[in-house]
Amino acid sequence: MRIGVIGAGQLGQMLGFAAQELGDDCRFLDPSSNPPAGAAGEVVTAAFDDLRALGELAASCDVLTYEFENVPVDPLRQIAGQVPVYPPVAALHHAQDRLLEKRLFSELDIPVADYRPVDSRADLEAAVAAIGLPLVLKTRRLGYDGKGQLVIRQQSDIDSAWNSLGDTPLIAEAWVDFDFEVSAIGAREPSGEMVIYPLTQNQHADGILRVSRAPVENVGLSELAAAHLGRLLERLDYVGVAALEFFVADNALTANELAPRVHNSGHWTIEGTITSQFSNHVRAITGRRLGSPAARGHAIMINLIGDIPAAARVLAMGHLHDYGKAPRVGRKLGHVTAVAESATSRDLLGEELLTTLGLTGLLSGAKK
Amino acid sequence: MRIGVIGAGQLGQMLGFAAQELGDDCRFLDPSSNPPAGAAGEVVTAAFDDLRALGELAASCDVLTYEFENVPVDPLRQIAGQVPVYPPVAALHHAQDRLLEKRLFSELDIPVADYRPVDSRADLEAAVAAIGLPLVLKTRRLGYDGKGQLVIRQQSDIDSAWNSLGDTPLIAEAWVDFDFEVSAIGAREPSGEMVIYPLTQNQHADGILRVSRAPVENVGLSELAAAHLGRLLERLDYVGVAALEFFVADNALTANELAPRVHNSGHWTIEGTITSQFSNHVRAITGRRLGSPAARGHAIMINLIGDIPAAARVLAMGHLHDYGKAPRVGRKLGHVTAVAESATSRDLLGEELLTTLGLTGLLSGAKK
Repeated sequence: MRIGVIGAGQLGQMLGFAAQELGDDCRFLDPSSNPPAGAAGEVVTAAFDDLRALGELAASCDVLTYEFENVPVDPLRQIAGQVPVYPPVAALHHAQDRLLEKRLFSELDIPVADYRPVDSRADLEAAVAAIGLPLVLKTRRLGYDGKGQLVIRQQSDIDSAWNSLGDTPLIAEAWVDFDFEVSAIGAREPSGEMVIYPLTQNQHADGILRVSRAPVENVGLSELAAAHLGRLLERLDYVGVAALEFFVADNALTANELAPRVHNSGHWTIEGTITSQFSNHVRAITGRRLGSPAARGHAIMINLIGDIPAAARVLAMGHLHDYGKAPRVGRKLGHVTAVAESATSRDLLGEELLTTLGLTGLLSGAKK
Repeated sequence: MRIGVIGAGQLGQMLGFAAQELGDDCRFLDPSSNPPAGAAGEVVTAAFDDLRALGELAASCDVLTYEFENVPVDPLRQIAGQVPVYPPVAALHHAQDRLLEKRLFSELDIPVADYRPVDSRADLEAAVAAIGLPLVLKTRRLGYDGKGQLVIRQQSDIDSAWNSLGDTPLIAEAWVDFDFEVSAIGAREPSGEMVIYPLTQNQHADGILRVSRAPVENVGLSELAAAHLGRLLERLDYVGVAALEFFVADNALTANELAPRVHNSGHWTIEGTITSQFSNHVRAITGRRLGSPAARGHAIMINLIGDIPAAARVLAMGHLHDYGKAPRVGRKLGHVTAVAESATSRDLLGEELLTTLGLTGLLSGAKK
């Protein structure tokens, strides 16, 4: 089958590689020149809201998908009459708006931090009074990697926060003093069959994912997260792979956000499970049966941000994925995955890899 | 780095994918249109002995390699002054001629079946008298997948065998009544550092590899095979990946042939080891340190010949590699790898996969 993919970054590249192995091929749409997915298929250079280019992509493909959640919804809705678009546009619509997303979570008994919509300075002050401080003020739409959000720690932060973000619809959320973050990743077929991957623990710095470790050993937490994700996928009549991120505090989950796509915290599934998230996304959107999400050992995934250290290319125990992007500060250029036979040996190996890659300092201040 | 690859079949394709992940890219040379490696890099369409095309490839690349052993040696020797050619041309030269190969094995105390060069009908009769029957008559050069060889079981077969093959230099080899076949695969850096993969057991039908299982549990056999391969790689001052095939009878090894390249029986290393044969070949020829060849679980690799059954695309426990080739009788179109936690569960899973793929009948008559 021919799969049209909106976006041609590294997620598109890895989707393309997985599709090739299954005998499918991908055609990408992306405005940037020389994007990573060019290594995995033809790229049509066009804006994401270029209706004519989207129409041509749809006409030349059996199914359309997307590799990032900021795809404009309206053009996609028009295309969806022409060719199946998976994940369904309704999921994208919810994931693009933190307020709709939070309301959906609440409706499905997925625990969330206390939140309030903020459309005026008065709303913000009311939210501070109701939720208390600290709180996080976020744009309802178009945030990623920690962008478009500010922490209000004291009354005197309100002014500057409002001045920075006040010109767009906002949401105020209670600050969650979490112990760590996890993500539940799953895939659903059109028939409703579903697989949920082992739970992943994530470590961020400066709002960007740095390290993931999986499977999380806490069975109770894993089952709870899987159940939440399962309800969400069913409710959205979802098709494809999705990731649901949670904060964990005192062994309790608080849902943060839904990514209606393959996810950075699932890169370890390439080497660390029977069937990767990329392969299962391709299988789901092409109407095939899903593969097993079972873990093969205990994995660590380390993001390479800004540059790829020379040491990454000669690791004895790690598998480098170089996305082929030009180096730039803060840019995700690649990742390394390593798998060990126990969580303990994975953690030892992980420390060694982080040292080899010169990344220990970066993480020392980050919340685990 | 930019790697020039002579040949653009599935081995080139998988080399290209491994190179991409390490941040290198491959440029291929192949006379056929739309070859598998086109999915992994640019293909220059030219004959393998087209000196001008080879020269241009060499000029545009940092290192040259090849994905099959029937590359013409003389053009390659000329190129080798211009850019490094790995594996070294001397290895290719020996691997292309069964007589030189056998002599080298003997010189290194690698056990071989009794053999005689056959350049005349009289030589053949003398070989039959000296070696006894049955024996295998093979062309010295350009054989693959069982082509270019005949078994002489009785005196009356001599005529027809001579009529079929007598117009080329031949070698007569004693028939080895083996219990099974194994291959030792290893990689060597320019510095002399070496890794040897766990030993692989192979099952053929009609002269074509059908199934590989690894690691072989017999430690003594594995260490012996690794030692033989190690001596061979050192003697050839080898750089890159090589496979040495052996017959096994009564727990003793008889060397069959050397493949100076990545090998079909090593495909399981993609999912089944820390560092695949493809990644280590790229590392070796680009002068990088090799990665660990340690097994991750117990693997089975099943070749898909002639067609790819629909069931291969929806396996719950197997990983399909579709090379993107047009179906044709006897053609290797793809393979499936599955990995389990023990040899016993691998064998159960293997039986299930062979049944699912409709391949049990094919193998029932084949020698294990």
